Amino acid sequence: MSSLFMFEKPLGMRDTLPETYETKNKIKRKMEKDIKKWGYQFIETPTLEYYETVGSASAILDQQLFKLLDQQGHTLVLRPDMTAPIARVAASKLLTEQLPLRLAYNASVFRAQQREGGRPAEFEQIGVEYIGDKTISADGEGIALMISSLKEAGLENFQLSIGHIGFVQTFFLQILGTKDRADALTKYLYEKNYVGYRQHVDKLSLSSIDKQRLHQFLKLRGGEEVINFAYDLIEDNKGKSAIDELKQLWEILVDYEEAGRVKLDLTLVSHMSYYTGILYEVYAEGVGFPIGSGGRYDLLLEKFGKSTGATGFAIRMDHLLEALGEIEQTKDIHCILFSGDRRKEAFELAKEKRAAGIKVITQDINGVGNVDACTKQYNEISLLVGKAGMEVVK
Amino acid sequence: MSSLFMFEKPLGMRDTLPETYETKNKIKRKMEKDIKKWGYQFIETPTLEYYETVGSASAILDQQLFKLLDQQGHTLVLRPDMTAPIARVAASKLLTEQLPLRLAYNASVFRAQQREGGRPAEFEQIGVEYIGDKTISADGEGIALMISSLKEAGLENFQLSIGHIGFVQTFFLQILGTKDRADALTKYLYEKNYVGYRQHVDKLSLSSIDKQRLHQFLKLRGGEEVINFAYDLIEDNKGKSAIDELKQLWEILVDYEEAGRVKLDLTLVSHMSYYTGILYEVYAEGVGFPIGSGGRYDLLLEKFGKSTGATGFAIRMDHLLEALGEIEQTKDIHCILFSGDRRKEAFELAKEKRAAGIKVITQDINGVGNVDACTKQYNEISLLVGKAGMEVVK
Repeated sequence: MSSLFMFEKPLGMRDTLPETYETKNKIKRKMEKDIKKWGYQFIETPTLEYYETVGSASAILDQQLFKLLDQQGHTLVLRPDMTAPIARVAASKLLTEQLPLRLAYNASVFRAQQREGGRPAEFEQIGVEYIGDKTISADGEGIALMISSLKEAGLENFQLSIGHIGFVQTFFLQILGTKDRADALTKYLYEKNYVGYRQHVDKLSLSSIDKQRLHQFLKLRGGEEVINFAYDLIEDNKGKSAIDELKQLWEILVDYEEAGRVKLDLTLVSHMSYYTGILYEVYAEGVGFPIGSGGRYDLLLEKFGKSTGATGFAIRMDHLLEALGEIEQTKDIHCILFSGDRRKEAFELAKEKRAAGIKVITQDINGVGNVDACTKQYNEISLLVGKAGMEVVK
Repeated sequence: MSSLFMFEKPLGMRDTLPETYETKNKIKRKMEKDIKKWGYQFIETPTLEYYETVGSASAILDQQLFKLLDQQGHTLVLRPDMTAPIARVAASKLLTEQLPLRLAYNASVFRAQQREGGRPAEFEQIGVEYIGDKTISADGEGIALMISSLKEAGLENFQLSIGHIGFVQTFFLQILGTKDRADALTKYLYEKNYVGYRQHVDKLSLSSIDKQRLHQFLKLRGGEEVINFAYDLIEDNKGKSAIDELKQLWEILVDYEEAGRVKLDLTLVSHMSYYTGILYEVYAEGVGFPIGSGGRYDLLLEKFGKSTGATGFAIRMDHLLEALGEIEQTKDIHCILFSGDRRKEAFELAKEKRAAGIKVITQDINGVGNVDACTKQYNEISLLVGKAGMEVVK
């Protein structure tokens, strides 16, 4: 174990300095406002949860969990996502009388990283959970709201990919026979390694027709036409009803006038293992990772004793900020430098300016080691020093 | 180790439901806006820090730290306060050219609790750090800003107690001779156990004059007149210069027109062991704990390689909310219930209303298990179902 330099932060941990903070907060507030306009209510849950309950309900790999022991001997985790904690709150307190519940959050989640220079181990998400509604309208609302909030954030060039995990599972199981063989092939999709997928398919002991179908499957990416291709490719009813759902979703997105933002991608799978139906990812120009993702998770609530449908999405603030590009510069502070004799005058001037909405520092000139450097830091400086009249430097 | 009920949360961990969330956020935004008007810039630091660096620089007792091991074998802590992390950021990145630095934060901090029903183990603070300025003007600004932001939050009946830890330390050391004996007596002050203090003093082997002085010390609480009593009681120059600082502070607060909010209390000590000078606590009517506290910590930055003065305060959001009392009810959502045939119409109506600033849910009527209960939930309902015309229920 090496010794630490005094400024060091744990692996994947980052500071957010003022300019980034301001930029991020302005964007968050716009998104939060929009999400509230769609009738969602924000809640907060604790940073720490029990491993045994929320930790095991989350879809994050065990080695990515930050774990600690409490004084009663229970294992705690730093929440690795917000969907499982919100499912806990919904099931225990909010879900009543068979009414759909619309909840939202803006919170940090934690995923331990293995090496320096990698991904952040703590990152902020803004997202929603729509719990207690099995209609495809709920899936459509999730997608439409995600698009709406990204537009509110100021993002212009972005695109959603929509798939159906139920379709992938049924299709693979039907051809490959066992869950293990299906999972092995799904792994290539998760890695978006289509070359590996094709090589893997070629090596399987299957009829040439089935191999052909597995190769055809990779072509299920595009516009509305993908729906009919998929109907041709799938044989069982469960698979067909997954496509029915996508067809219905497409119509809903047309009614939202957002079908233009959307591509169907039936090869889309997620690391969130609790998804059961329609799922989606959003990509923005110039950013290598998804800005956000979402999907239906109809079985998660069962872990908290309720059987009901649910869907939701999360947007990653760090990736969204990267996509938006601009970090605001905040140089809009007025500085009043004063000495003791004119302190009261300085306070009064500051009060007046603040009431008018101006940001004002009142600075005792004796507290400044380097007055020249100080005056350079601000756009406007007022000097209230000694017996002289007020001098505005710039 | 007992088995856990599926809804259980770790000791001292709480959920924040929508009404509380909204109330808290409105208050936070008002305070944040005010703090920015005083020229402070908000930053964020990670939830996890190294025990060896920030953890040991914080003033929180070891048994109150949440600790975990990272994969490199270093001990991490969930930040127990924000002052030490901000000192780290200031020292490593922001503090340059002998210029005072005004930073602010709004963040959760973590302190492990020993038993159920006790204090929260995670709670939110809004606060500021004013780093790089040794003048009493900086202390005065901290106090004036704390008062200003509490007023902005809507708090009316509150009072600050101001003390000076340097005075207490010097006075006790002068009479008691050793730090251990001084610490033993200080403990009673921290517990605000004045009966215990008096009994302890009576048992000490001291001259009756010194005992008398220690008893007199408890009377150093009140208005401006306390300053002259304190001059009479202290003999050494270090103690006198502490009183000089309080005198200067009082004049500054008069100039801020806030001396009316303030009592001097020279018996005030803090569990924050890094305080070195003027310190303060704020109490609100009807709340048993301080709403917030602050003070000068001129030695903390040295742990991060910089020697400079600093002062700051933190307000606890949970205690402030308790003092403010009212939790807002949010019943202002309009609900449009639709069926498939009139979905597009529903979306258009919702868009229109949202653009006018109204919160609108569009709800597929097939997703509602109990339509009557649903209609009761909202003040206004529009029905867009089947071929009929639009019916506004209430």
